[in-house]
Amino acid sequence: MRVGFLGLGQIGGSIARALRVTGDDWWVGAWTPSGAGPREALAAGVIDGAFVDARALIAESDVLVLAAPPVACVALVERLGGEWRGALRTGATVTDVASTKQALEAAARRADLPWVGGHPMAGRETSGFGAADATLFHGRPWVVTSALGGGNPAVVRALALACGAVPVEIDAAAHDGLVAAISHLPLLTSVALVEAVTGSPGAAPEDWAAASALAAGGWRDTTRLARGDTAMGAEIAVTNAGPIAARLRAYRGAIDTWIALLETPGGPDAAVIRERMDAAKARLEHPGG
Amino acid sequence: MRVGFLGLGQIGGSIARALRVTGDDWWVGAWTPSGAGPREALAAGVIDGAFVDARALIAESDVLVLAAPPVACVALVERLGGEWRGALRTGATVTDVASTKQALEAAARRADLPWVGGHPMAGRETSGFGAADATLFHGRPWVVTSALGGGNPAVVRALALACGAVPVEIDAAAHDGLVAAISHLPLLTSVALVEAVTGSPGAAPEDWAAASALAAGGWRDTTRLARGDTAMGAEIAVTNAGPIAARLRAYRGAIDTWIALLETPGGPDAAVIRERMDAAKARLEHPGG
Repeated sequence: MRVGFLGLGQIGGSIARALRVTGDDWWVGAWTPSGAGPREALAAGVIDGAFVDARALIAESDVLVLAAPPVACVALVERLGGEWRGALRTGATVTDVASTKQALEAAARRADLPWVGGHPMAGRETSGFGAADATLFHGRPWVVTSALGGGNPAVVRALALACGAVPVEIDAAAHDGLVAAISHLPLLTSVALVEAVTGSPGAAPEDWAAASALAAGGWRDTTRLARGDTAMGAEIAVTNAGPIAARLRAYRGAIDTWIALLETPGGPDAAVIRERMDAAKARLEHPGG
Repeated sequence: MRVGFLGLGQIGGSIARALRVTGDDWWVGAWTPSGAGPREALAAGVIDGAFVDARALIAESDVLVLAAPPVACVALVERLGGEWRGALRTGATVTDVASTKQALEAAARRADLPWVGGHPMAGRETSGFGAADATLFHGRPWVVTSALGGGNPAVVRALALACGAVPVEIDAAAHDGLVAAISHLPLLTSVALVEAVTGSPGAAPEDWAAASALAAGGWRDTTRLARGDTAMGAEIAVTNAGPIAARLRAYRGAIDTWIALLETPGGPDAAVIRERMDAAKARLEHPGG
Protein backbone atom coordinates (compact mmCIF):
# COMPACT_ATOMS: atom_id res chain seq x y z
CA MET A 1 0.00 0.00 0.00
CA ARG A 2 1.20 3.50 -0.86
CA VAL A 3 0.93 5.89 2.09
CA GLY A 4 1.39 9.65 1.76
CA PHE A 5 1.88 11.84 4.84
CA LEU A 6 0.84 15.48 4.75
CA GLY A 7 2.67 16.58 7.90
CA LEU A 8 5.38 14.48 9.57
CA GLY A 9 5.90 15.29 13.25
CA GLN A 10 6.09 12.97 16.23
CA ILE A 11 2.88 11.09 15.41
CA GLY A 12 3.22 10.89 11.62
CA GLY A 13 6.91 10.07 11.99
CA SER A 14 6.15 7.30 14.48
CA ILE A 15 3.68 5.73 12.05
CA ALA A 16 6.23 5.98 9.21
CA ARG A 17 8.90 4.33 11.39
CA ALA A 18 6.47 1.57 12.41
CA LEU A 19 5.57 0.88 8.75
CA ARG A 20 9.27 0.69 7.88
CA VAL A 21 9.98 -1.96 10.52
CA THR A 22 6.91 -4.17 9.83
CA GLY A 23 8.68 -5.73 6.88
CA ASP A 24 5.49 -5.59 4.84
CA ASP A 25 5.37 -3.93 1.49
CA TRP A 26 4.56 -0.31 2.38
CA TRP A 27 5.65 2.58 0.20
CA VAL A 28 5.85 5.78 2.23
CA GLY A 29 6.12 9.37 1.02
CA ALA A 30 5.82 12.65 2.90
CA TRP A 31 5.31 16.37 2.37
CA THR A 32 5.31 19.18 4.93
CA PRO A 33 5.22 22.96 4.37
CA SER A 34 8.89 23.38 5.38
CA GLY A 35 10.12 20.01 4.10
CA ALA A 36 12.42 19.56 7.12
CA GLY A 37 10.80 16.43 8.57
CA PRO A 38 10.59 14.57 5.23
CA ARG A 39 14.26 15.37 4.43
CA GLU A 40 15.30 14.02 7.84
CA ALA A 41 13.10 10.94 7.40
CA LEU A 42 14.45 10.24 3.91
CA ALA A 43 18.05 10.60 5.13
CA ALA A 44 17.25 8.16 7.96
CA GLY A 45 15.85 5.64 5.47
CA VAL A 46 12.40 5.85 7.07
CA ILE A 47 10.50 7.01 3.94
CA ASP A 48 10.80 6.36 0.24
CA GLY A 49 10.14 9.87 -0.98
CA ALA A 50 10.34 13.44 0.38
CA PHE A 51 8.04 15.60 -1.77
CA VAL A 52 8.31 19.34 -2.27
CA ASP A 53 5.08 19.30 -4.29
CA ALA A 54 2.09 18.05 -2.28
CA ARG A 55 0.14 17.32 -5.51
CA ALA A 56 2.84 14.91 -6.68
CA LEU A 57 2.66 13.00 -3.39
CA ILE A 58 -1.16 12.95 -3.45
CA ALA A 59 -1.07 11.51 -6.97
CA GLU A 60 1.21 8.66 -5.73
CA SER A 61 -0.81 7.69 -2.62
CA ASP A 62 -3.58 5.14 -1.95
CA VAL A 63 -4.03 6.54 1.55
CA LEU A 64 -3.28 10.07 2.67
CA VAL A 65 -2.54 10.62 6.34
CA LEU A 66 -3.03 14.18 7.58
CA ALA A 67 -0.50 14.33 10.41
CA ALA A 68 -0.78 17.88 11.73
CA PRO A 69 -2.58 19.64 14.63
CA PRO A 70 -6.40 19.86 14.28
CA VAL A 71 -6.75 23.36 12.80
CA ALA A 72 -3.91 22.73 10.35
CA CYS A 73 -5.67 19.48 9.34
CA VAL A 74 -8.86 21.40 8.58
CA ALA A 75 -6.83 23.61 6.22
CA LEU A 76 -5.33 20.50 4.55
CA VAL A 77 -8.83 19.06 4.09
CA GLU A 78 -9.94 22.31 2.44
CA ARG A 79 -6.95 22.22 0.06
CA LEU A 80 -7.67 18.56 -0.78
CA GLY A 81 -11.24 19.57 -1.60
CA GLY A 82 -10.01 22.51 -3.68
CA GLU A 83 -6.65 23.11 -5.37
CA TRP A 84 -5.39 19.54 -4.79
CA ARG A 85 -8.59 17.63 -5.68
CA GLY A 86 -7.48 16.79 -9.20
CA ALA A 87 -4.46 14.89 -7.88
CA LEU A 88 -6.51 12.50 -5.65
CA ARG A 89 -6.44 8.93 -7.02
CA THR A 90 -9.68 7.06 -7.63
CA GLY A 91 -10.33 4.81 -4.62
CA ALA A 92 -7.94 6.72 -2.35
CA THR A 93 -8.84 7.25 1.31
CA VAL A 94 -7.98 10.31 3.37
CA THR A 95 -7.43 9.85 7.11
CA ASP A 96 -5.79 11.81 9.92
CA VAL A 97 -4.27 11.43 13.39
CA ALA A 98 -5.58 14.61 15.04
CA SER A 99 -6.80 14.79 18.65
CA THR A 100 -10.31 16.06 17.80
CA LYS A 101 -12.61 14.55 15.21
CA GLN A 102 -15.92 16.42 14.73
CA ALA A 103 -14.54 19.67 13.30
CA LEU A 104 -12.39 17.74 10.87
CA GLU A 105 -15.20 15.38 9.86
CA ALA A 106 -17.45 18.36 9.15
CA ALA A 107 -14.72 19.88 6.97
CA ALA A 108 -14.25 16.56 5.13
CA ARG A 109 -18.01 16.39 4.51
CA ARG A 110 -18.04 19.95 3.14
CA ALA A 111 -15.04 19.09 0.93
CA ASP A 112 -16.71 15.82 -0.15
CA LEU A 113 -13.56 13.76 0.51
CA PRO A 114 -13.31 9.95 0.78
CA TRP A 115 -12.82 10.22 4.56
CA VAL A 116 -12.22 7.94 7.56
CA GLY A 117 -10.99 9.86 10.63
CA GLY A 118 -8.38 8.32 12.93
CA HIS A 119 -6.84 9.00 16.31
CA PRO A 120 -4.01 6.86 17.65
CA MET A 121 -4.22 7.33 21.45
CA ALA A 122 -0.57 7.88 22.25
CA GLY A 123 1.91 10.72 22.27
CA ARG A 124 4.43 12.41 24.44
CA GLU A 125 5.23 16.00 25.40
CA THR A 126 8.01 15.96 22.82
CA SER A 127 7.31 16.97 19.20
CA GLY A 128 8.78 16.81 15.71
CA PHE A 129 10.03 13.95 13.54
CA GLY A 130 13.11 13.67 15.80
CA ALA A 131 10.79 12.44 18.58
CA ALA A 132 9.25 9.70 16.39
CA ASP A 133 9.29 6.16 17.80
CA ALA A 134 8.21 3.01 15.94
CA THR A 135 6.84 1.48 19.17
CA LEU A 136 4.75 4.51 20.22
CA PHE A 137 1.40 2.84 19.36
CA HIS A 138 2.09 -0.72 20.57
CA GLY A 139 -1.02 -2.00 22.32
CA ARG A 140 -2.67 1.45 22.26
CA PRO A 141 -6.22 2.11 20.97
CA TRP A 142 -6.47 3.74 17.52
CA VAL A 143 -9.88 5.32 17.11
CA VAL A 144 -11.42 4.86 13.65
CA THR A 145 -14.48 7.02 12.92
CA SER A 146 -17.31 6.46 10.43
CA ALA A 147 -16.53 6.45 6.70
CA LEU A 148 -17.71 9.34 4.53
CA GLY A 149 -17.77 9.84 0.75
CA GLY A 150 -16.44 6.40 -0.12
CA GLY A 151 -13.51 6.36 2.31
CA ASN A 152 -12.36 2.80 3.11
CA PRO A 153 -12.16 1.97 6.85
CA ALA A 154 -10.22 -1.26 6.14
CA VAL A 155 -7.27 0.84 4.97
CA VAL A 156 -7.18 2.79 8.25
CA ARG A 157 -7.54 -0.39 10.32
CA ALA A 158 -4.63 -1.92 8.37
CA LEU A 159 -2.49 1.13 9.12
CA ALA A 160 -3.33 0.85 12.85
CA LEU A 161 -2.59 -2.89 12.93
CA ALA A 162 0.73 -2.39 11.13
CA CYS A 163 1.70 0.00 13.97
CA GLY A 164 0.80 -2.61 16.62
CA ALA A 165 -2.24 -0.58 17.68
CA VAL A 166 -5.79 -1.79 18.37
CA PRO A 167 -8.41 -0.28 16.00
CA VAL A 168 -11.54 0.87 17.90
CA GLU A 169 -14.63 2.11 16.03
CA ILE A 170 -16.13 5.20 17.70
CA ASP A 171 -18.07 7.95 15.95
CA ALA A 172 -16.61 11.44 15.90
CA ALA A 173 -19.05 12.99 18.41
CA ALA A 174 -18.59 10.18 20.95
CA HIS A 175 -14.81 10.35 20.49
CA ASP A 176 -14.71 14.07 21.15
CA GLY A 177 -16.79 13.68 24.33
CA LEU A 178 -14.56 10.89 25.65
CA VAL A 179 -11.24 12.60 24.93
CA ALA A 180 -12.62 15.84 26.37
CA ALA A 181 -12.89 13.86 29.63
CA ILE A 182 -9.61 11.95 29.77
CA SER A 183 -7.30 14.17 27.75
CA HIS A 184 -8.49 17.77 27.21
CA LEU A 185 -10.00 18.36 30.66
CA PRO A 186 -6.75 17.17 32.30
CA LEU A 187 -4.81 19.57 30.05
CA LEU A 188 -6.89 22.59 31.11
CA THR A 189 -6.95 21.62 34.80
CA SER A 190 -3.17 21.41 34.57
CA VAL A 191 -2.90 24.88 33.00
CA ALA A 192 -5.39 26.33 35.52
CA LEU A 193 -3.37 24.81 38.37
CA VAL A 194 -0.26 26.58 37.09
CA GLU A 195 -2.22 29.83 36.72
CA ALA A 196 -3.69 29.63 40.24
CA VAL A 197 -0.29 29.01 41.83
CA THR A 198 2.06 31.09 39.68
CA GLY A 199 -0.23 34.10 39.27
CA SER A 200 -2.30 35.15 36.30
CA PRO A 201 -1.00 37.54 33.66
CA GLY A 202 -0.75 40.96 35.31
CA ALA A 203 -0.92 39.56 38.84
CA ALA A 204 2.36 39.37 40.78
CA PRO A 205 3.43 35.75 41.44
CA GLU A 206 4.02 36.66 45.13
CA ASP A 207 5.09 33.41 46.80
CA TRP A 208 5.50 31.31 43.64
CA ALA A 209 9.32 31.29 43.75
CA ALA A 210 9.26 30.13 47.40
CA ALA A 211 6.60 27.51 46.69
CA SER A 212 8.51 26.28 43.64
CA ALA A 213 11.57 25.54 45.76
CA LEU A 214 9.47 23.06 47.79
CA ALA A 215 7.70 21.42 44.85
CA ALA A 216 8.10 17.65 44.49
CA GLY A 217 6.80 14.82 42.31
CA GLY A 218 3.11 15.56 42.81
CA TRP A 219 3.46 19.08 41.43
CA ARG A 220 5.61 17.87 38.54
CA ASP A 221 3.07 15.22 37.51
CA THR A 222 -0.06 17.36 37.82
CA THR A 223 1.54 20.19 35.80
CA ARG A 224 3.26 18.06 33.15
CA LEU A 225 0.53 18.67 30.55
CA ALA A 226 0.94 22.45 30.99
CA ARG A 227 4.56 22.03 29.83
CA GLY A 228 3.47 20.46 26.53
CA ASP A 229 2.98 21.83 23.02
CA THR A 230 0.83 24.96 23.49
CA ALA A 231 0.10 25.40 19.77
CA MET A 232 -1.36 21.89 19.76
CA GLY A 233 -3.22 22.56 23.03
CA ALA A 234 -4.84 25.69 21.61
CA GLU A 235 -5.92 23.90 18.40
CA ILE A 236 -7.44 21.11 20.47
CA ALA A 237 -9.30 23.61 22.65
CA VAL A 238 -10.85 25.54 19.75
CA THR A 239 -11.86 22.44 17.79
CA ASN A 240 -13.47 20.71 20.81
CA ALA A 241 -14.62 23.73 22.83
CA GLY A 242 -18.19 22.57 23.51
CA PRO A 243 -17.42 19.12 24.96
CA ILE A 244 -14.47 20.51 26.96
CA ALA A 245 -16.59 23.34 28.40
CA ALA A 246 -19.25 20.80 29.45
CA ARG A 247 -16.60 18.70 31.23
CA LEU A 248 -15.13 21.81 32.86
CA ARG A 249 -18.56 22.72 34.26
CA ALA A 250 -18.91 19.27 35.83
CA TYR A 251 -15.40 19.63 37.17
CA ARG A 252 -16.14 23.03 38.67
CA GLY A 253 -19.08 21.40 40.46
CA ALA A 254 -16.69 18.90 42.07
CA ILE A 255 -14.31 21.72 43.07
CA ASP A 256 -17.23 23.62 44.64
CA THR A 257 -18.16 20.65 46.81
CA TRP A 258 -14.53 20.38 47.99
CA ILE A 259 -14.47 24.06 48.96
CA ALA A 260 -17.73 23.59 50.89
CA LEU A 261 -16.34 20.48 52.60
CA LEU A 262 -13.12 22.23 53.68
CA GLU A 263 -15.08 25.25 54.93
CA THR A 264 -17.52 23.14 57.00
CA PRO A 265 -18.35 25.16 60.15
CA GLY A 266 -16.43 23.63 63.05
CA GLY A 267 -13.86 22.16 60.66
CA PRO A 268 -13.98 19.38 58.10
CA ASP A 269 -14.46 15.73 59.03
CA ALA A 270 -11.47 13.51 58.16
CA ALA A 271 -13.69 10.41 57.85
CA VAL A 272 -15.98 12.10 55.30
CA ILE A 273 -13.00 13.33 53.27
CA ARG A 274 -11.33 9.95 53.33
CA GLU A 275 -14.55 8.26 52.22
CA ARG A 276 -14.76 10.58 49.20
CA MET A 277 -11.12 10.00 48.33
CA ASP A 278 -11.56 6.23 48.70
CA ALA A 279 -14.64 6.25 46.46
CA ALA A 280 -12.84 8.24 43.74
CA LYS A 281 -9.79 5.99 43.93
CA ALA A 282 -11.96 2.86 43.63
CA ARG A 283 -13.76 4.19 40.52
CA LEU A 284 -10.44 5.27 39.04
CA GLU A 285 -8.88 1.85 39.50
CA HIS A 286 -11.95 -0.19 38.51
CA PRO A 287 -13.55 1.56 35.51
CA GLY A 288 -15.87 -1.37 34.86
CA GLY A 289 -17.05 -1.80 38.45
CA MET B 1 23.05 11.29 68.89
CA ARG B 2 20.21 9.05 70.08
CA VAL B 3 17.15 9.25 67.81
CA GLY B 4 13.78 7.76 68.74
CA PHE B 5 11.05 7.32 66.13
CA LEU B 6 7.41 7.32 67.20
CA GLY B 7 5.98 5.90 63.97
CA LEU B 8 8.12 4.22 61.30
CA GLY B 9 6.53 4.20 57.85
CA GLN B 10 8.02 5.22 54.50
CA ILE B 11 9.32 8.60 55.71
CA GLY B 12 10.53 7.60 59.19
CA GLY B 13 12.00 4.41 57.77
CA SER B 14 13.83 6.32 55.04
CA ILE B 15 15.39 8.61 57.66
CA ALA B 16 16.42 5.59 59.76
CA ARG B 17 17.99 3.94 56.71
CA ALA B 18 19.82 7.16 55.79
CA LEU B 19 21.20 7.48 59.36
CA ARG B 20 22.40 3.86 59.22
CA VAL B 21 24.38 4.41 56.01
CA THR B 22 25.98 7.76 57.00
CA GLY B 23 28.58 5.91 59.08
CA ASP B 24 28.28 8.51 61.84
CA ASP B 25 27.52 7.53 65.36
CA TRP B 26 23.70 7.51 65.41
CA TRP B 27 21.74 5.31 67.79
CA VAL B 28 18.27 4.67 66.44
CA GLY B 29 15.24 3.23 68.23
CA ALA B 30 11.63 2.99 67.17
CA TRP B 31 8.13 2.40 68.51
CA THR B 32 4.84 2.14 66.65
CA PRO B 33 1.39 1.13 67.94
CA SER B 34 1.52 -2.25 66.15
CA GLY B 35 5.28 -2.78 66.39
CA ALA B 36 5.44 -4.27 62.89
CA GLY B 37 7.69 -1.59 61.30
CA PRO B 38 10.23 -1.56 64.16
CA ARG B 39 10.45 -5.39 64.17
CA GLU B 40 11.10 -5.37 60.40
CA ALA B 41 13.66 -2.56 60.75
CA LEU B 42 15.48 -4.32 63.58
CA ALA B 43 15.62 -7.58 61.62
CA ALA B 44 17.02 -5.64 58.64
CA GLY B 45 19.74 -4.13 60.86
CA VAL B 46 18.39 -0.60 60.25
CA ILE B 47 17.67 0.28 63.88
CA ASP B 48 19.29 -0.55 67.22
CA GLY B 49 16.13 -1.10 69.21
CA ALA B 50 12.48 -1.97 68.60
CA PHE B 51 10.47 -0.79 71.62
CA VAL B 52 7.13 -2.14 72.76
CA ASP B 53 6.98 0.54 75.47
CA ALA B 54 7.02 4.09 74.06
CA ARG B 55 8.09 5.51 77.45
CA ALA B 56 11.24 3.37 77.44
CA LEU B 57 12.18 4.68 73.97
CA ILE B 58 11.43 8.28 74.97
CA ALA B 59 13.69 7.90 78.02
CA GLU B 60 16.56 6.75 75.71
CA SER B 61 16.26 9.51 73.07
CA ASP B 62 17.92 12.93 72.63
CA VAL B 63 15.62 13.66 69.70
CA LEU B 64 12.17 12.23 69.14
CA VAL B 65 10.87 12.09 65.57
CA LEU B 66 7.09 11.84 65.22
CA ALA B 67 6.78 9.96 61.93
CA ALA B 68 3.04 9.54 61.42
CA PRO B 69 0.27 11.33 59.48
CA PRO B 70 -0.65 14.81 60.82
CA VAL B 71 -3.68 13.93 62.99
CA ALA B 72 -1.86 10.94 64.48
CA CYS B 73 1.08 13.26 65.23
CA VAL B 74 -1.22 15.64 67.13
CA ALA B 75 -2.27 12.67 69.30
CA LEU B 76 1.41 11.76 69.90
CA VAL B 77 2.13 15.36 70.94
CA GLU B 78 -0.75 15.22 73.41
CA ARG B 79 0.56 11.97 74.90
CA LEU B 80 4.08 13.45 75.16
CA GLY B 81 2.57 16.40 77.06
CA GLY B 82 0.57 14.05 79.29
CA GLU B 83 1.15 10.39 80.16
CA TRP B 84 4.64 10.26 78.58
CA ARG B 85 5.98 13.62 79.86
CA GLY B 86 7.90 12.10 82.78
CA ALA B 87 10.00 10.02 80.39
CA LEU B 88 11.27 13.02 78.32
CA ARG B 89 15.00 13.63 78.89
CA THR B 90 16.22 17.07 79.91
CA GLY B 91 17.45 18.86 76.78
CA ALA B 92 15.59 16.55 74.41
CA THR B 93 13.98 17.96 71.25
CA VAL B 94 10.74 16.74 69.68
CA THR B 95 10.36 17.06 65.90
CA ASP B 96 8.16 15.53 63.22
CA VAL B 97 7.96 14.87 59.48
CA ALA B 98 4.27 15.57 58.85
CA SER B 99 2.92 17.38 55.77
CA THR B 100 1.20 20.20 57.69
CA LYS B 101 2.78 22.28 60.44
CA GLN B 102 0.43 24.81 62.08
CA ALA B 103 -1.99 22.37 63.75
CA LEU B 104 0.92 20.37 65.13
CA GLU B 105 2.80 23.45 66.33
CA ALA B 106 -0.32 24.65 68.15
CA ALA B 107 -0.64 21.25 69.83
CA ALA B 108 3.07 21.33 70.81
CA ARG B 109 2.60 24.80 72.31
CA ARG B 110 -0.43 23.62 74.32
CA ALA B 111 1.57 20.59 75.49
CA ASP B 112 4.58 22.83 76.31
CA LEU B 113 7.02 20.53 74.47
CA PRO B 114 10.60 21.36 73.41
CA TRP B 115 9.50 21.55 69.75
CA VAL B 116 11.02 22.16 66.30
CA GLY B 117 8.71 21.09 63.47
CA GLY B 118 10.13 19.48 60.34
CA HIS B 119 8.97 18.48 56.86
CA PRO B 120 11.26 16.65 54.46
CA MET B 121 9.81 17.47 51.01
CA ALA B 122 9.88 14.01 49.45
CA GLY B 123 7.72 10.91 49.37
CA ARG B 124 6.12 8.50 47.02
CA GLU B 125 2.67 6.98 46.63
CA THR B 126 3.95 3.86 48.39
CA SER B 127 3.76 3.59 52.18
CA GLY B 128 5.08 1.57 55.11
CA PHE B 129 8.61 0.71 56.28
CA GLY B 130 8.96 -1.68 53.33
CA ALA B 131 8.93 1.37 51.01
CA ALA B 132 11.75 3.13 52.94
CA ASP B 133 14.74 4.31 50.89
CA ALA B 134 17.95 5.80 52.31
CA THR B 135 18.28 8.12 49.29
CA LEU B 136 14.72 9.51 49.38
CA PHE B 137 15.79 12.94 50.71
CA HIS B 138 18.99 13.45 48.70
CA GLY B 139 19.09 17.07 47.58
CA ARG B 140 15.50 17.72 48.70
CA PRO B 141 14.44 20.64 50.92
CA TRP B 142 13.72 19.77 54.58
CA VAL B 143 11.60 22.51 56.13
CA VAL B 144 12.58 23.40 59.72
CA THR B 145 10.06 25.57 61.60
CA SER B 146 10.62 27.93 64.56
CA ALA B 147 11.74 26.47 67.90
CA LEU B 148 9.31 26.39 70.85
CA GLY B 149 9.77 25.58 74.53
CA GLY B 150 13.53 25.07 74.33
CA GLY B 151 13.57 22.79 71.29
CA ASN B 152 16.98 22.80 69.54
CA PRO B 153 16.86 23.56 65.79
CA ALA B 154 20.50 22.44 65.34
CA VAL B 155 19.45 18.87 66.11
CA VAL B 156 16.81 18.91 63.37
CA ARG B 157 19.21 20.50 60.88
CA ALA B 158 21.77 17.77 61.71
CA LEU B 159 19.15 15.09 61.06
CA ALA B 160 18.31 16.68 57.69
CA LEU B 161 21.96 16.98 56.67
CA ALA B 162 22.64 13.36 57.65
CA CYS B 163 19.89 12.37 55.19
CA GLY B 164 21.49 14.39 52.40
CA ALA B 165 18.66 16.96 52.52
CA VAL B 166 18.87 20.77 52.53
CA PRO B 167 17.47 22.37 55.73
CA VAL B 168 15.25 25.40 54.95
CA GLU B 169 13.88 27.61 57.73
CA ILE B 170 10.25 28.55 57.14
CA ASP B 171 7.67 29.31 59.81
CA ALA B 172 4.69 27.00 60.18
CA ALA B 173 2.09 29.39 58.71
CA ALA B 174 4.20 30.19 55.64
CA HIS B 175 4.96 26.49 55.16
CA ASP B 176 1.29 25.55 55.24
CA GLY B 177 0.44 28.24 52.67
CA LEU B 178 3.20 27.12 50.30
CA VAL B 179 2.47 23.39 50.48
CA ALA B 180 -1.25 24.13 50.11
CA ALA B 181 -0.23 25.53 46.69
CA ILE B 182 2.22 22.97 45.36
CA SER B 183 1.11 19.81 47.13
CA HIS B 184 -2.39 19.88 48.65
CA LEU B 185 -4.14 21.83 45.87
CA PRO B 186 -2.74 19.38 43.26
CA LEU B 187 -4.04 16.48 45.38
CA LEU B 188 -7.58 17.86 45.50
CA THR B 189 -7.61 18.90 41.81
CA SER B 190 -6.57 15.33 41.03
CA VAL B 191 -9.38 13.86 43.15
CA ALA B 192 -11.91 16.33 41.67
CA LEU B 193 -10.78 15.37 38.16
CA VAL B 194 -11.46 11.72 38.94
CA GLU B 195 -14.85 12.64 40.42
CA ALA B 196 -15.85 14.76 37.41
CA VAL B 197 -14.95 12.02 34.92
CA THR B 198 -15.89 8.83 36.78
CA GLY B 199 -19.10 10.13 38.35
CA SER B 200 -19.81 11.24 41.89
CA PRO B 201 -21.10 8.87 44.55
CA GLY B 202 -24.69 8.04 43.61
CA ALA B 203 -24.29 9.24 40.01
CA ALA B 204 -23.91 6.59 37.32
CA PRO B 205 -20.45 6.70 35.69
CA GLU B 206 -22.10 6.59 32.24
CA ASP B 207 -19.23 6.77 29.75
CA TRP B 208 -16.36 6.30 32.22
CA ALA B 209 -15.56 2.73 31.14
CA ALA B 210 -15.39 3.80 27.47
CA ALA B 211 -13.30 6.87 28.31
CA SER B 212 -10.98 4.80 30.47
CA ALA B 213 -10.16 2.52 27.55
CA LEU B 214 -8.78 5.55 25.66
CA ALA B 215 -6.84 7.08 28.58
CA ALA B 216 -3.12 7.62 28.08
CA GLY B 217 -0.17 9.18 29.90
CA GLY B 218 -1.76 12.58 30.52
CA TRP B 219 -4.68 11.03 32.41
CA ARG B 220 -2.35 8.76 34.37
CA ASP B 221 -0.13 11.65 35.48
CA THR B 222 -2.89 14.09 36.38
CA THR B 223 -4.72 11.45 38.45
CA ARG B 224 -1.68 9.86 40.11
CA LEU B 225 -2.17 11.78 43.38
CA ALA B 226 -5.77 10.48 43.60
CA ARG B 227 -4.32 6.93 43.72
CA GLY B 228 -2.24 7.75 46.82
CA ASP B 229 -2.75 7.16 50.55
CA THR B 230 -6.27 8.44 51.25
CA ALA B 231 -5.91 8.30 55.05
CA MET B 232 -2.89 10.60 54.73
CA GLY B 233 -4.74 12.82 52.25
CA ALA B 234 -7.69 13.24 54.61
CA GLU B 235 -5.43 14.11 57.56
CA ILE B 236 -3.62 16.69 55.44
CA ALA B 237 -6.94 18.21 54.33
CA VAL B 238 -8.35 18.59 57.83
CA THR B 239 -5.14 19.99 59.34
CA ASN B 240 -4.62 22.55 56.54
CA ALA B 241 -8.22 23.24 55.51
CA GLY B 242 -8.04 27.05 55.53
CA PRO B 243 -4.99 27.52 53.29
CA ILE B 244 -6.18 24.75 50.93
CA ALA B 245 -9.67 26.28 50.65
CA ALA B 246 -8.09 29.67 49.83
CA ARG B 247 -6.02 28.08 47.04
CA LEU B 248 -9.05 26.18 45.74
CA ARG B 249 -10.98 29.47 45.47
CA ALA B 250 -8.19 31.01 43.40
CA TYR B 251 -8.12 27.86 41.31
CA ARG B 252 -11.88 27.95 40.74
CA GLY B 253 -11.40 31.51 39.48
CA ALA B 254 -8.94 30.24 36.87
CA ILE B 255 -11.35 27.44 35.85
CA ASP B 256 -14.17 30.00 35.47
CA THR B 257 -12.09 32.09 33.07
CA TRP B 258 -11.38 28.97 30.98
CA ILE B 259 -15.07 28.13 30.77
CA ALA B 260 -15.81 31.71 29.69
CA LEU B 261 -13.02 31.56 27.10
CA LEU B 262 -14.26 28.27 25.61
CA GLU B 263 -17.83 29.57 25.51
CA THR B 264 -16.88 32.83 23.74
CA PRO B 265 -19.76 33.71 21.37
CA GLY B 266 -18.63 32.88 17.84
CA GLY B 267 -16.10 30.36 19.14
CA PRO B 268 -12.85 30.70 21.07
CA ASP B 269 -9.74 32.30 19.59
CA ALA B 270 -6.79 29.90 19.24
CA ALA B 271 -4.26 32.75 19.49
CA VAL B 272 -5.70 33.96 22.80
CA ILE B 273 -5.71 30.43 24.22
CA ARG B 274 -2.17 29.75 23.07
CA GLU B 275 -0.99 33.02 24.61
CA ARG B 276 -2.47 32.03 27.99
CA MET B 277 -0.93 28.55 27.78
CA ASP B 278 2.45 30.03 26.80
CA ALA B 279 2.35 32.52 29.70
CA ALA B 280 1.51 29.75 32.22
CA LYS B 281 4.25 27.49 30.81
CA ALA B 282 6.82 30.31 31.04
CA ARG B 283 5.96 31.06 34.70
CA LEU B 284 6.01 27.33 35.48
CA GLU B 285 9.45 26.84 33.97
CA HIS B 286 10.98 30.09 35.31
CA PRO B 287 9.76 30.53 38.88
CA GLY B 288 12.21 33.36 39.52
CA GLY B 289 11.43 35.32 36.36
